[in-house]
Amino acid sequence: MRIVVLAGGIGGARFLRGLRRAAPDAEITVVGNTGDDIHLFGLKVCPDLDTVMYTLGGGIDEEQGWGRADESFTVKEELAAYGVGPEWFGLGDRDFATHIVRTQMLAAGYPLSAVTEALCARWQPGVRLLPMSDDRVETHVAIEVDGERRAVHFQEYWVKLRASVDAKAVVPVGAEAAKPAPGVLEAIAEADLILFPPSNPVVSVGTILAVPGIREAVAAAAAPVVGLSPIVGDAPVRGMADKVLAAVGVESTAAAVARHYGSELLDGWLVDTVDAGAVADVEAAGIACRAVPLMMTDVDATAAMARAALELAEEVRG
Amino acid sequence: MRIVVLAGGIGGARFLRGLRRAAPDAEITVVGNTGDDIHLFGLKVCPDLDTVMYTLGGGIDEEQGWGRADESFTVKEELAAYGVGPEWFGLGDRDFATHIVRTQMLAAGYPLSAVTEALCARWQPGVRLLPMSDDRVETHVAIEVDGERRAVHFQEYWVKLRASVDAKAVVPVGAEAAKPAPGVLEAIAEADLILFPPSNPVVSVGTILAVPGIREAVAAAAAPVVGLSPIVGDAPVRGMADKVLAAVGVESTAAAVARHYGSELLDGWLVDTVDAGAVADVEAAGIACRAVPLMMTDVDATAAMARAALELAEEVRG
Repeated sequence: MRIVVLAGGIGGARFLRGLRRAAPDAEITVVGNTGDDIHLFGLKVCPDLDTVMYTLGGGIDEEQGWGRADESFTVKEELAAYGVGPEWFGLGDRDFATHIVRTQMLAAGYPLSAVTEALCARWQPGVRLLPMSDDRVETHVAIEVDGERRAVHFQEYWVKLRASVDAKAVVPVGAEAAKPAPGVLEAIAEADLILFPPSNPVVSVGTILAVPGIREAVAAAAAPVVGLSPIVGDAPVRGMADKVLAAVGVESTAAAVARHYGSELLDGWLVDTVDAGAVADVEAAGIACRAVPLMMTDVDATAAMARAALELAEEVRG
Repeated sequence: MRIVVLAGGIGGARFLRGLRRAAPDAEITVVGNTGDDIHLFGLKVCPDLDTVMYTLGGGIDEEQGWGRADESFTVKEELAAYGVGPEWFGLGDRDFATHIVRTQMLAAGYPLSAVTEALCARWQPGVRLLPMSDDRVETHVAIEVDGERRAVHFQEYWVKLRASVDAKAVVPVGAEAAKPAPGVLEAIAEADLILFPPSNPVVSVGTILAVPGIREAVAAAAAPVVGLSPIVGDAPVRGMADKVLAAVGVESTAAAVARHYGSELLDGWLVDTVDAGAVADVEAAGIACRAVPLMMTDVDATAAMARAALELAEEVRG
């Protein structure tokens, strides 16, 4: 079975670990969000790709969900001693090596997809990890500071400001001119199943869908498309998804997110058991819906979620 | 008093520490060799400039004479885990930060001289440190492997091969088109004293003199020019200077090195007391010569050497 997963960072990576256990023989292609990518210290940092790679490759800091386990911060401290920041972005020494290799390969002319493949040769994530695009896309968030509107990089909004101010708009800058990375459209067209993990519907899955051709390919795919709600009991399971949902006019409810994707994209949708009341609402929008536990407390619980998604896919396949 | 020192790495840096103690009120400008510079992992590494900066700024690894004290090697180990080398060049985590800042500033358009000034704002070396040139000069060493001649980067010859094969030629690639960095020629012209520390006469001082205009400025300078022999008792005090001296047809003796520089450049030359027999020989070449202890065993001993150089300068000044 060929499965394509459109994945953001932590939520996507953890879901994938469950999926790999639930479907050990599946050929999984992950289309990773690169709208969170940022240049720091002259280096190209791809937080979502790395979170997937480290999580599936056994190198992740389990507790925080991003960055490397057993990490030290000597380089960052030295950069700060030179007065060079930003200090709000936590790049550890092990992590720096990844960005140094990536930046060197990009400078040598390799596209991001080839670089990602080279990095994965070390990590052996057990999935094929593709960036959504080899072209630069950078998610910016419009905020208001002292009555004046200004745009900040998504990482500045998310990590530095901790989403403490309202997002007025979310713009994947460069997306309209970006092309899907080699293999992305083919993987979607040839998939037996397409999954939206409980990643952020705006700045993760939404950014991937903003690359021209990807949304259309998912809508046109022969395979069923099943998503898992990142909202449980009217609140994001993790992160501050409600802030960016509000920016695109979507309520922070499991049903509202399903309607946001819509039946053009989704064939099936899983909500948490606490949101069982939303099932009828989602089905009324033409999307098959089931209520199952959606908390990724450990790999077993996550594998059960993945199995529920596989079952719902079989149902909608009919 | 304004003193200009043409300096290589370890020998130059240690001498400068003694000079600073011997002449605490002097305004010292260091013209640093950049022919050893190398691009590693996409980063610009300037070993000689950094050795001077770290040594005078109190950050040097005292024992090995280069690199940072209290160093760790996490980044390098991680790079090796990605299969990315070279592994023979010892870049530590603290050191990496310097190269990251430098590379980022160079990419932003700053010349190396401005970058060096910015780095020195942290280290406060107590001297004005100028690269010999803002243009790229790279010392290559011609060697013979299996009867075939090939050129390797100086660092590969020195660090990887440990100068274990004969150097057939030493070529400062790019030197002929390089311009002295801003301030270099002015400092030489306005100096009250010019010193050649016991640095490598071929790949350190020689490379600096190979930048068009610098040799001419030193020869034309009003100030006395005094050098200290890096050869003591027919052997280099440290490093493998004999290998590269042989490549330019110069014997590894204190007198031969003085004659190599010649009386066009040198007004005075210090040899070690074990080489007192060479004094007459050097003076016959038109260069005032004294024999004093030239082992930089500690800062006191080095300051005494610097004082001897200052005294010889006064003598030749007449």
